[in-house]
Amino acid sequence: MWLTLWENAIRRKLRELAEGQRPMVIETQGPSMSRYRGYFQRDVPEEDKELTHVGPGTPCGEYLRQYWQAIAVSSEIKDLPKAIRLLGEDLVLFRDLGGRVGLLHRHCSHRLASLEYGIISERGIRCCYHGWLYDIDGTILETPGEPGDSAAAAKLRETNQHGAYPACEYKGLIFAYLGHPDKTPSFPIYDTFEIPGVELVPYSVIFRCNWLQVTENGMDPVHSMFLHTRVSDPQFSETWGVQGEVQYYDGKLAVYCTIGRRVLDNVWVRVQENILPNITQSGAVLSMDGKTTKYFGRNSFFRWCVPIDDTNTLVVGWASFGDRTDPKEWNTVENIEKLEQGEVFDRSYEEEQRRPGDLAAQTGQGPIAIHKKEHLVSSDTGVAKFRARLRREIRALQRGNQPLEPREPPNGPIPTYSGDTVLRIPILDPQNDVRLIRDTVKSVLKILAEGDQLVGNERDERVILGLKELESHYQ
Amino acid sequence: MWLTLWENAIRRKLRELAEGQRPMVIETQGPSMSRYRGYFQRDVPEEDKELTHVGPGTPCGEYLRQYWQAIAVSSEIKDLPKAIRLLGEDLVLFRDLGGRVGLLHRHCSHRLASLEYGIISERGIRCCYHGWLYDIDGTILETPGEPGDSAAAAKLRETNQHGAYPACEYKGLIFAYLGHPDKTPSFPIYDTFEIPGVELVPYSVIFRCNWLQVTENGMDPVHSMFLHTRVSDPQFSETWGVQGEVQYYDGKLAVYCTIGRRVLDNVWVRVQENILPNITQSGAVLSMDGKTTKYFGRNSFFRWCVPIDDTNTLVVGWASFGDRTDPKEWNTVENIEKLEQGEVFDRSYEEEQRRPGDLAAQTGQGPIAIHKKEHLVSSDTGVAKFRARLRREIRALQRGNQPLEPREPPNGPIPTYSGDTVLRIPILDPQNDVRLIRDTVKSVLKILAEGDQLVGNERDERVILGLKELESHYQ
Amino acid sequence: MWLTLWENAIRRKLRELAEGQRPMVIETQGPSMSRYRGYFQRDVPEEDKELTHVGPGTPCGEYLRQYWQAIAVSSEIKDLPKAIRLLGEDLVLFRDLGGRVGLLHRHCSHRLASLEYGIISERGIRCCYHGWLYDIDGTILETPGEPGDSAAAAKLRETNQHGAYPACEYKGLIFAYLGHPDKTPSFPIYDTFEIPGVELVPYSVIFRCNWLQVTENGMDPVHSMFLHTRVSDPQFSETWGVQGEVQYYDGKLAVYCTIGRRVLDNVWVRVQENILPNITQSGAVLSMDGKTTKYFGRNSFFRWCVPIDDTNTLVVGWASFGDRTDPKEWNTVENIEKLEQGEVFDRSYEEEQRRPGDLAAQTGQGPIAIHKKEHLVSSDTGVAKFRARLRREIRALQRGNQPLEPREPPNGPIPTYSGDTVLRIPILDPQNDVRLIRDTVKSVLKILAEGDQLVGNERDERVILGLKELESHYQ
Repeated sequence: MWLTLWENAIRRKLRELAEGQRPMVIETQGPSMSRYRGYFQRDVPEEDKELTHVGPGTPCGEYLRQYWQAIAVSSEIKDLPKAIRLLGEDLVLFRDLGGRVGLLHRHCSHRLASLEYGIISERGIRCCYHGWLYDIDGTILETPGEPGDSAAAAKLRETNQHGAYPACEYKGLIFAYLGHPDKTPSFPIYDTFEIPGVELVPYSVIFRCNWLQVTENGMDPVHSMFLHTRVSDPQFSETWGVQGEVQYYDGKLAVYCTIGRRVLDNVWVRVQENILPNITQSGAVLSMDGKTTKYFGRNSFFRWCVPIDDTNTLVVGWASFGDRTDPKEWNTVENIEKLEQGEVFDRSYEEEQRRPGDLAAQTGQGPIAIHKKEHLVSSDTGVAKFRARLRREIRALQRGNQPLEPREPPNGPIPTYSGDTVLRIPILDPQNDVRLIRDTVKSVLKILAEGDQLVGNERDERVILGLKELESHYQ
Repeated sequence: MWLTLWENAIRRKLRELAEGQRPMVIETQGPSMSRYRGYFQRDVPEEDKELTHVGPGTPCGEYLRQYWQAIAVSSEIKDLPKAIRLLGEDLVLFRDLGGRVGLLHRHCSHRLASLEYGIISERGIRCCYHGWLYDIDGTILETPGEPGDSAAAAKLRETNQHGAYPACEYKGLIFAYLGHPDKTPSFPIYDTFEIPGVELVPYSVIFRCNWLQVTENGMDPVHSMFLHTRVSDPQFSETWGVQGEVQYYDGKLAVYCTIGRRVLDNVWVRVQENILPNITQSGAVLSMDGKTTKYFGRNSFFRWCVPIDDTNTLVVGWASFGDRTDPKEWNTVENIEKLEQGEVFDRSYEEEQRRPGDLAAQTGQGPIAIHKKEHLVSSDTGVAKFRARLRREIRALQRGNQPLEPREPPNGPIPTYSGDTVLRIPILDPQNDVRLIRDTVKSVLKILAEGDQLVGNERDERVILGLKELESHYQ
Repeated sequence: MWLTLWENAIRRKLRELAEGQRPMVIETQGPSMSRYRGYFQRDVPEEDKELTHVGPGTPCGEYLRQYWQAIAVSSEIKDLPKAIRLLGEDLVLFRDLGGRVGLLHRHCSHRLASLEYGIISERGIRCCYHGWLYDIDGTILETPGEPGDSAAAAKLRETNQHGAYPACEYKGLIFAYLGHPDKTPSFPIYDTFEIPGVELVPYSVIFRCNWLQVTENGMDPVHSMFLHTRVSDPQFSETWGVQGEVQYYDGKLAVYCTIGRRVLDNVWVRVQENILPNITQSGAVLSMDGKTTKYFGRNSFFRWCVPIDDTNTLVVGWASFGDRTDPKEWNTVENIEKLEQGEVFDRSYEEEQRRPGDLAAQTGQGPIAIHKKEHLVSSDTGVAKFRARLRREIRALQRGNQPLEPREPPNGPIPTYSGDTVLRIPILDPQNDVRLIRDTVKSVLKILAEGDQLVGNERDERVILGLKELESHYQ
């Protein structure tokens, strides 16, 4: 520690200060004063627009629009429309009486009244002001104020289309595609959408900050050791505080990071993945502590981080509960909030200060974090790789390349890897345990990948067999 | 309707979606995808500044300033000043102890303290900070901090005038003129200000959107058939839902629209008028249903739509109650609110969504509606004419022309025409009833105009006689 | 008064107006209309940036940063950090477990998480996100996510310093210096920091307006005669309403104003001082009425008016209570608020309108008062001098001069003069009493200055003796 006689002197005098006596004249020429650099570091540079500005026409916005996005929880949309803002556009979301969801530009094509006051109809939505009726694809079905036989009105309905985006529902979430209609991708099905014994619980929260701050957190495993464990009380198991061996990988459709940790006689290998551009997925959070053997544990959440606009983000996804992840008894509203940010959402400012979660950490970075003021270190490698990858993809799209499109292989859903494997691999050689952990991580990844050509039970069996074999070498 | 086998297929699969099964790959190349035009219609053009920007120096602001405006209800101004914002200026409104109303620039000429904290005096208002006393015309009466014999202070008082606008009170409302003082028009008296048996009830409400959206609604009779009737429950009589024959007229001082409707054996002729630039007047609203004969019914409101600034509007006026309009038993606070927007004002967001009124419709168009995104149709003719008329008047003023000034004729108040006439004119020929209704409207207008050279009872008798004669032709 | 027959006629007709009769056509050509100048005075010029813009790099901001500023009351800082904004910078203030206060740039140097969620540590503050630990001078003590033996991390910690400003505590307040560290001035001790029998009570309030409006008020003695006395009820003694003889002085470290008042047989001399740049100090407020003899009364408050940013100001200082100022029985929370602005702070808008205090007066001038719209008079001489002095100092600094630095003389604290002296000097000659008062003020100032070379009791005795001698001449 940095204790000098001078430091003690300062402490003594500052204590005298606090007790109200004449303060020592603060050294004005000494080296200690020059350590105070606040005055020289007051600049506030611009944000990295390429990765953070998401409104219509922006490169990043255009990139995000190439993909189906989860935009709401189905159960929020009942018999009223919902005003919703996505990627800087004012829209309205509704489900018509025929059960079809629609996502339309908010202002009626007639005279701009807001469709948030529209009337849900058998088919589509009807504007409150003059009754124009829009189908879910924006077709103008009726323009009631006009004479029934009006050719001009018929022509207007045929030649104009109210702005709309295709939307669909799936497993309790509503999805939409906001990109160029001629390039509508298929709706990608990932393996974690259907895992026997695992229940998907839809949820949605809002972060009042830029989308990138929320999303890149998935490639930052080190924060869990601090924010969620060491800094205040452990929000998850205290074993999360164990410094892990971290590696980062740039895959075809996603970026990954792996954390290898020793927990007693076990090596705990965790895989987290950010599926491009804005999906994050990770292993069990609430119940995982590395103390119990586990073979090919799966994810505990799958979430889209969708920009509302440049300074607000909507997180929509599923929490997963079941034996292969956080068991079902963990399925409560409060626990889902903790899954999302380590703490529940509705708290006082003081509670947030005392036990900050991801919401405080990410929102506190500012409405749009100014990267030029950062000092990244080796533990930020995942974040840096993720940003670099996004930038490459954004620029490729700007140059006219086809965006990367996730497609299921011929025989089943897209395989993913998030989750935990805990193998009983006791310490062999204390001097070389780091090496052992790293090798174990590599081996686990290799085994996971061997399952890629298989699906469902076959894949599980193959991977689990491989992991048990690996473990057996160390018994 | 647009039902194809393919559409049914989509519906079926979307239902499967909602039930959680694997979603069909959404057709990505089909014609249906290209119907989703949201991506191509994301632009947000500029608003029409010429008609909507109203601050100091703007053409539209200058135009509106040529006219006396109702700016408050007398009973709101008691023994305290009121901070008020009009046409983008911060002002203060008060009534001194001598009973005279004053409308002054809000910031004291001395050191800018706000006169909303001023002290109401026997004569004028006294600033709280250093006691400077201002008369209602802005004359600086006292500068107490200065020596009583100070020549400099006397000179300052003589050569400087605090910004003020002439104001007066009339029938429970406060009016002001905010234009060039050398061009102060006389205060125009309209016929509906004094109708025997009709009580004027002052009121005031605020719309959080641009003045034009609020005012042009008066020339949009078609919205009543939808917003106030068909869309949710009828807010007025259900006969308002009957599609009417609508005509629009550009008059000397006002623009008008007429709606002719058949109601059983009656032809109901309604006249609505927008007196330039920002007054709207219309017939009975709460009790009118066209089912009972009526000769020369009069207006139910006379209201000024005064800009607070570019995105907020103050509506001030009178509701009228009496036999010739909505009868006196309708005179309640709640009914006046319904008169104003079809619904009461203080409601939850959900209530507003379920039963939207004019407030939802107009505010929902945006802070300033972007006309370039509109698609006007024939039923918007009145709105289009009104905007075109405003633009002509605004440009004429910019070129240096005298503004149109309403003046009473030599023998009495300015005649207006808003109101309802219901004549027993049964269907003659079902194929030609539209023609009959149109002819009736024309005849009614002609008869109304015949009364122009008369006033009061004489005018009423002449017009009513004429209407009865017209009706008698059809018995 | 200005009463003409025509005026009476207007009054009569306006009364008729209010009673609902046909309003007289307002004279449109008469001279009275041309008195309404509102239309010609609608301009809103720019504010005086040189004196009001205070963000990083601005001339005025740079000037204010040369001085130690009081920034918080010690007792507000307990075991949590406090987000604080000063001179347009987002900062965090805390006291570590070792009792040392720190003022740091708010966003962590690592990835910008807000240190308002940081964890108070034995030494410094630890960021919640990844645990980086900062000492109070910004030294990066720990970067826990990095391997313990990482040379790169060690280098980062050595070569980077998190933005920090030196802070200290003294008599219940926290101070900081936000200027160039090489030019850190000594912490100036003023005589009023230690007056035997006088208790300093720390307090802090916020004014939602520019710093200059709050600070210049100290050089405006005339407002006390109105705002605090004549305008509503006396907020202090009614003798404050006596018009005084006012003089202004430009001193070396401060600007002063003196007010001489006759109160019965007494001449009451009051000295107020604004110590450059943003400290204000004045005599007893709550109990002072000039009716009782007093020799060399001292100050009742000593306050720093610190910009939060261009439109918000933090006032931090001490209220003083004791026999030489407002006696101790006046020491209540409510009274300290009245000391600050004449009224308590937490009031309804209507209460504020009826009995406005400094808060209403100064905030009502606008977020930044537009000086070009003012009309200064002789009683604003102090304010004008103060602004001119600030401008000179700001420009001198811009040219590279050393800022004026308050330093204690060799033998004790910096002498100040705020306070009240009340001498029994009856009226000699009613025609020349003003002369007598002015001479008395001059003499009192001279006597006060004679004490400059002495300190403590010696100084008091010398001055008090001198004042008693002066008084004795008139018995």
